Amino acid sequence: MKTNPGLTEIITALRDAEKVIIACHIFPDADALGSQLALGNILRSMGKEVYLYGEEPVSYILDFLPGAETLDVGLPDINLFDCCIALDCGDERRLGKGKEHLLQVHPFVVVDHHSGHKNFGDLRWVEPDRSSTGEMVYELAKAMGAEISYETAYCLYSAIVADTGSFKYASTTPRTLYVAGELVELGVKPAEISGKIFDNFTKNRLQLLQEVLASHALYENDQLAIIEVTLELYEKTGTTGVDTEHFINYPRALETVKVAAFIKESKDFVGVSMRSKGLHDVAQVARKFGGGGHRNAAGFKLPTTGTAKEREQIIADIRGQVLAELSTLL
Amino acid sequence: MKTNPGLTEIITALRDAEKVIIACHIFPDADALGSQLALGNILRSMGKEVYLYGEEPVSYILDFLPGAETLDVGLPDINLFDCCIALDCGDERRLGKGKEHLLQVHPFVVVDHHSGHKNFGDLRWVEPDRSSTGEMVYELAKAMGAEISYETAYCLYSAIVADTGSFKYASTTPRTLYVAGELVELGVKPAEISGKIFDNFTKNRLQLLQEVLASHALYENDQLAIIEVTLELYEKTGTTGVDTEHFINYPRALETVKVAAFIKESKDFVGVSMRSKGLHDVAQVARKFGGGGHRNAAGFKLPTTGTAKEREQIIADIRGQVLAELSTLL
Repeated sequence: MKTNPGLTEIITALRDAEKVIIACHIFPDADALGSQLALGNILRSMGKEVYLYGEEPVSYILDFLPGAETLDVGLPDINLFDCCIALDCGDERRLGKGKEHLLQVHPFVVVDHHSGHKNFGDLRWVEPDRSSTGEMVYELAKAMGAEISYETAYCLYSAIVADTGSFKYASTTPRTLYVAGELVELGVKPAEISGKIFDNFTKNRLQLLQEVLASHALYENDQLAIIEVTLELYEKTGTTGVDTEHFINYPRALETVKVAAFIKESKDFVGVSMRSKGLHDVAQVARKFGGGGHRNAAGFKLPTTGTAKEREQIIADIRGQVLAELSTLL
Repeated sequence: MKTNPGLTEIITALRDAEKVIIACHIFPDADALGSQLALGNILRSMGKEVYLYGEEPVSYILDFLPGAETLDVGLPDINLFDCCIALDCGDERRLGKGKEHLLQVHPFVVVDHHSGHKNFGDLRWVEPDRSSTGEMVYELAKAMGAEISYETAYCLYSAIVADTGSFKYASTTPRTLYVAGELVELGVKPAEISGKIFDNFTKNRLQLLQEVLASHALYENDQLAIIEVTLELYEKTGTTGVDTEHFINYPRALETVKVAAFIKESKDFVGVSMRSKGLHDVAQVARKFGGGGHRNAAGFKLPTTGTAKEREQIIADIRGQVLAELSTLL
């Protein structure tokens, strides 16, 4: 493991703490939530009292994670805690509505792997070359000599698999694979977890996928792909935003495609997820729109309001801007 | 590594051999061809003369494998060789047209991981619990103290990734992940290889996928899925059989689906690929039709002849039989 001064200080802080509140980024994915649940178990095994904070209840896509039901929606009395940890948060704004509240706890510990991470908190361990926050939480547990239970291993394996697209992304290092192997030795079943993460299609969701794929448009000699989902399509197929998880990987699978964007209409905003291959840096584009992420996976959100027609125009404008910005990467 | 008497004898045989012919199963996938190319490099690094035999030229899907162009189509004078190795062959019939010819070479060495492997050859190392023949060739190289070049690592990583669906299948063990990690240390780039294996869609192929997905039918409370491709569909989309690689994974991704079959029409035969989750054993079904494979991935072929209408009837019969047999697994 890389020696990292942030890690050493964090271990001391965690050893000293008695009551810890753990948060992760809003709209958590399997890396954020899996890391949160795993670190909760790890700290409890060390005798700490732990509070797992989430802005919203866990979505059906992630409720297979052991302990997902222990997440608390709603902020407790913040004076109760002598440590707060933010996991997988590249920016304090990603703490959501609880941000001001949470940041009052000290020491405020940050463990994250986002490139373009914006520093916040008191003690930071940030390694953009790590595959996932889950991989970092595993290292943290090992460095503290903490027990890694089957449930903890399950959450960490899920975190790593989800954030590497099952070891397909460039962020996959030898260490990532060794950690995964050690987690499998703890009883985790790769096929079971991959099934929960990738093979969790309902019939409605498969119909949504077919409709979204039909929306695909190619630009720049087929190097740039855009897919879209609208509120109307959700209604037609009986689905919601969580059902679009991983859809962006489909246009990315075209051999000619180097960058892909997925434009998702929500009630009050438009979300744009971007993926790229190789050195094309979509995080750079995301930051121009106030978002963030990694070189090969990034995104942002912009507000929408008005009538259906006005919202349609806003989305068309966003599509044009995204197309223009992504074209400059090619 | 498991001690395996087969392996020890094989190492002695390979050390003694001077001119080796290496074969793999017909219609090779990345595990078969990757293992073949890798073992060719390994034996050459030990000073052996190597002939890589293939019944047909390498398909465009696999021609990214380094050394693919060194495969020889056509059988050489078999008396030239003092050793033949069959890789990833669960049954001698899978050696194809060259079978009788190849089996004249002694010692005839077999390295395979198929469950239901039917013994043939003189020296066998068969481990159905291995993720892939690629993983076994890696162990063989390590056990012989042979050099593993970047090109060899590339072929072996491709073999492992393809045969585990990128570490998603139940065959993925801690050892599989550790071997993969060691191959990445040798310079292999997971994202590059995953891209070549999984993200190699042409526009025609994506259209074929959309059409094949539209063909999907669900049975047995959505636990059983069947997809199909016809000669007509290949013609319509400008594709061929090799373009259907991995399509069977899409119906498998439905959370309710426990077993899935893909019925593929060819000129002279119908190929049926089957996939399952968990303990449902599709290899057992494949064997009833004269085929073979693994518990979670198996297949078979049956001949077709006659007019378009007669062939259609043959396919309908096969569909009915497959449906009946797969239903008994549920």
